[in-house]
Amino acid sequence: MDYYITAQSRASLWEKHKNRLEEARKAWRERKFWYAFPEDPSQYDSALAQQGEADFKAQLSRPFDRLRQPGKKWVISDEVSPYTQEPLGISYPQADPQEAIELAQKALSIWRWVPWTERLGILMESVERFQRRFFEVAHATLHTTGQAWMMAFQASGPHAADRAVEALAVAYHELDHIPPHVRWEKPTPKEPILIEKHFIPQPEGISLHFGVSTFPVWNTLPGLYASLAVGSPVLLKPHPRAVYPIAIVVAILQELFEEHGLPSTIVQLVVDTLAEPVGKRLAEHPAVRIIDYTGGPEFGAYLESLPNKITFLEKAGVNPVLIESVNDITSVAKNIAFSASLYSGQMCTAPQNVYILRGGVKTAQGQLSYEEVVQALTKAIEELAGHPKAAPAILGALQNSTVAERVQRLSGHGQVRRSATAYKHPQYEQARTLTPLIVEAPSSREDFLRTEHFGPRLIFVPVADGEAALEAIYQLAREKGMLSCSIYTTDSSFKQRAIQKLAEAAVPISFNFHGQAFINQSVAFSDFHGTGGNPAGNASFTDSSFIVKRFRWVQVRDCLKG
Amino acid sequence: MDYYITAQSRASLWEKHKNRLEEARKAWRERKFWYAFPEDPSQYDSALAQQGEADFKAQLSRPFDRLRQPGKKWVISDEVSPYTQEPLGISYPQADPQEAIELAQKALSIWRWVPWTERLGILMESVERFQRRFFEVAHATLHTTGQAWMMAFQASGPHAADRAVEALAVAYHELDHIPPHVRWEKPTPKEPILIEKHFIPQPEGISLHFGVSTFPVWNTLPGLYASLAVGSPVLLKPHPRAVYPIAIVVAILQELFEEHGLPSTIVQLVVDTLAEPVGKRLAEHPAVRIIDYTGGPEFGAYLESLPNKITFLEKAGVNPVLIESVNDITSVAKNIAFSASLYSGQMCTAPQNVYILRGGVKTAQGQLSYEEVVQALTKAIEELAGHPKAAPAILGALQNSTVAERVQRLSGHGQVRRSATAYKHPQYEQARTLTPLIVEAPSSREDFLRTEHFGPRLIFVPVADGEAALEAIYQLAREKGMLSCSIYTTDSSFKQRAIQKLAEAAVPISFNFHGQAFINQSVAFSDFHGTGGNPAGNASFTDSSFIVKRFRWVQVRDCLKG
Repeated sequence: MDYYITAQSRASLWEKHKNRLEEARKAWRERKFWYAFPEDPSQYDSALAQQGEADFKAQLSRPFDRLRQPGKKWVISDEVSPYTQEPLGISYPQADPQEAIELAQKALSIWRWVPWTERLGILMESVERFQRRFFEVAHATLHTTGQAWMMAFQASGPHAADRAVEALAVAYHELDHIPPHVRWEKPTPKEPILIEKHFIPQPEGISLHFGVSTFPVWNTLPGLYASLAVGSPVLLKPHPRAVYPIAIVVAILQELFEEHGLPSTIVQLVVDTLAEPVGKRLAEHPAVRIIDYTGGPEFGAYLESLPNKITFLEKAGVNPVLIESVNDITSVAKNIAFSASLYSGQMCTAPQNVYILRGGVKTAQGQLSYEEVVQALTKAIEELAGHPKAAPAILGALQNSTVAERVQRLSGHGQVRRSATAYKHPQYEQARTLTPLIVEAPSSREDFLRTEHFGPRLIFVPVADGEAALEAIYQLAREKGMLSCSIYTTDSSFKQRAIQKLAEAAVPISFNFHGQAFINQSVAFSDFHGTGGNPAGNASFTDSSFIVKRFRWVQVRDCLKG
Repeated sequence: MDYYITAQSRASLWEKHKNRLEEARKAWRERKFWYAFPEDPSQYDSALAQQGEADFKAQLSRPFDRLRQPGKKWVISDEVSPYTQEPLGISYPQADPQEAIELAQKALSIWRWVPWTERLGILMESVERFQRRFFEVAHATLHTTGQAWMMAFQASGPHAADRAVEALAVAYHELDHIPPHVRWEKPTPKEPILIEKHFIPQPEGISLHFGVSTFPVWNTLPGLYASLAVGSPVLLKPHPRAVYPIAIVVAILQELFEEHGLPSTIVQLVVDTLAEPVGKRLAEHPAVRIIDYTGGPEFGAYLESLPNKITFLEKAGVNPVLIESVNDITSVAKNIAFSASLYSGQMCTAPQNVYILRGGVKTAQGQLSYEEVVQALTKAIEELAGHPKAAPAILGALQNSTVAERVQRLSGHGQVRRSATAYKHPQYEQARTLTPLIVEAPSSREDFLRTEHFGPRLIFVPVADGEAALEAIYQLAREKGMLSCSIYTTDSSFKQRAIQKLAEAAVPISFNFHGQAFINQSVAFSDFHGTGGNPAGNASFTDSSFIVKRFRWVQVRDCLKG
């Protein structure tokens, strides 16, 4: 019996990539340092860098004509560069939601029957092809998200590609441990019973993926590749403010599908605008079974409430820092300043509430008062924000103007320790910049402290002692959730208590991050991004759950001797 | 750092059982014939058989005093023997729902921190200890469910124990592939960054398990052991008509937990009555996070609709048989008659709608008319139902009186081909018996054919051709779901079309079952019971999903060199 749809060219791609995928799977299991793509731009051919910049410039103010999907009209997205404050002026084919769903259903009837080996082969090939466009994607990311150059390159290029390979490696792990078929033979007093058994993985249905404006590629690739790996076609609805970076990836996939005799519409870009969103219409369609989403908690809660959907959500949380005791406050302050400033605090892992012991903090150089700790932190922020090279390289720009407005409003909610001011970007005069606001609020201001205030800001919270801080963080985790939690302590028994207390609320803790290690970073093949067990999100990049919830094993038994 | 709660005695149990569990895990992955416990009662020590019978007799009409959990009052369950129609008269300690939840929360705070190796060790030990009670459980099962002796022994004894070991093996597979901790070292131009990473599996919360009156042990053990394996305490609410069999398992677990210094309340039996059910109160409690359930679709849909729950549901479906072409109709008819009669059709895998080609069926001996096929099937049922030894051994008794009432009502919905009549049980004069009703209904009677009619019955449905039957089965699967689907065909291209069509609706197909192979049976380590992908259920015994949805990986990073 051959119910699969096979092709030699796709089988060859599996042969080409399977050793690499095996290596990636091994790395995922061992969780030591490993990467599929180097993060240093200088390790790539300089011709690629030049080409990427040229491609980017050529694309501006022109239709994005690389997609292979229908679209009667072209729509100009809401993309505006946070650096030049000028619209990118790129138009995309506008997909009709109903037509897109019908095309996805047709694609499903083929893609689900392509053997997973061939699927993984073609998907690995797509990541390799994507690599040649890292530089164009970096420019596109910088001018949609406001990320600084190095982050735009790394997060949308090698780090995202690594997460894609990771999703494929986990899919490989999960699809490979059940054999495609087996002869089951049961001895009996007479003749043995002989049954041929087939194990057929089948996707739960069509996937819908919501992109986010801050990390349009990094947050999209895991779910996109996970769904595609298990045979589920994807409707990719990017954030209207950040279409271009992920459109490049979709175009590469569509091109490869076509090259290998498959419908290009296995993945479709569904572009909408802020004025006319189509997300709910797609999400509520009964044919859509799997939903991936990164974004605000309100829309996330709405998606979670839809019946008969399997959701993978990263909503926002409130990320705390606790300074219980330190070796060297200067080094700690620098590290926190960096984490809070990186991409102007617009990372889902950026710290917000900084809990500091009211009675002061033990250090290797003796006890520091609360005020001394506050001053050290404020000074570190000041130095970074005021540094003409560091500020643009680290802070980048604000994705949109509401971020700045929201941060400025915070100053009414506590004692301002540092005002948020713009810094002058050396290259882009019009850049939308803002350096971190620091306010101080008492722990009694629960509503305020249990709300995510997205953007460049830190909120200092004096607390009675370490245990009180752990309790506050525990309650925060239970109620609002968090994607990072940074604790500084030199007391190993406190460390143990923190783990025991907070792991029960599924808090991912980072202890004593300093030097060049930053809590914001979560690396593929070693770090789980999000635990999925607190209100900040119900999924994790990339655990088994992220894959196995997307498909079912369908077993067929053929009785040869009864 | 040592945040786990360890004990030497529990660690020894892991040492004792880990090789066996490794073997079970290998069997689960290879899916060939393998078992942990022999299914033939004669392979067990005859002293165990005698002891089991004596224990059963001694327990009747007495309090079940083996549990180690609080209970101010004792409650007599609704257990009535389907064979003697007399109440078992066993009373159980009545758990207060709120108190039970509080005890489970306390147990959770300990059990979640017992290393998974120790958890698996103690759980494997409990299955071994359970083995010594297979005979008592068999008697208890027979006199609560109405199963015949051999099924009562196998389904509640070795087959259930095998499914428990399987759940533990999959948990082992899933917990073992991520290391408990690792040193992550990233080279940099200066000093390497060194981070110690901990990976801590944490349960999603407390589990609630609903038992079913027909298979109180077999359908319970997978979810029970899966939850316990990942550190989730279980509130086990048996069906009020079938408490005793599973109470034995709970008592063994509680005894072992106590012996090894753990709260006995890691698992609690919550007995209620038909008059005063407590299921909804438990299910809706915010502390209950995981729900396992086997039973009717209405209550299943209610559970599925509860917010913030992770559900593992086996609801009812409508199981079809399709006779497209056969080698030997006599052998096929016998096999179908057995499947329909086994435990009086009260299995979730029992066939209901038998689709037969209106123009007749090809056989190795030439074409048979529709009427000839109908007669062969009816004759096979007649022979089995009229056989003085086969009838009691295969049909057993009806679990409760509504089953008979419902089946009798079916005769008003089509042409009766065989009436349902009682058979005389040789041993129990009062046994509640009923042999299968056969009615014929046109395929236009969609409402009737798309409803599960639980009990001893077959509905013959004439269809135009094989393709029309596949379409009917496909629609049935999409709308109502199914746990088995039996197709007879000698045409390999039809077989392939059937797979391609039906796998898309997540239908588990069994082709050409004959002789001693029956579609009702689903064996641990090889067969997935339920695909989880159609409305009959959202879970499968036992795939990875059945385990990984119950826990999350919580990662802790400790930065040693930044």
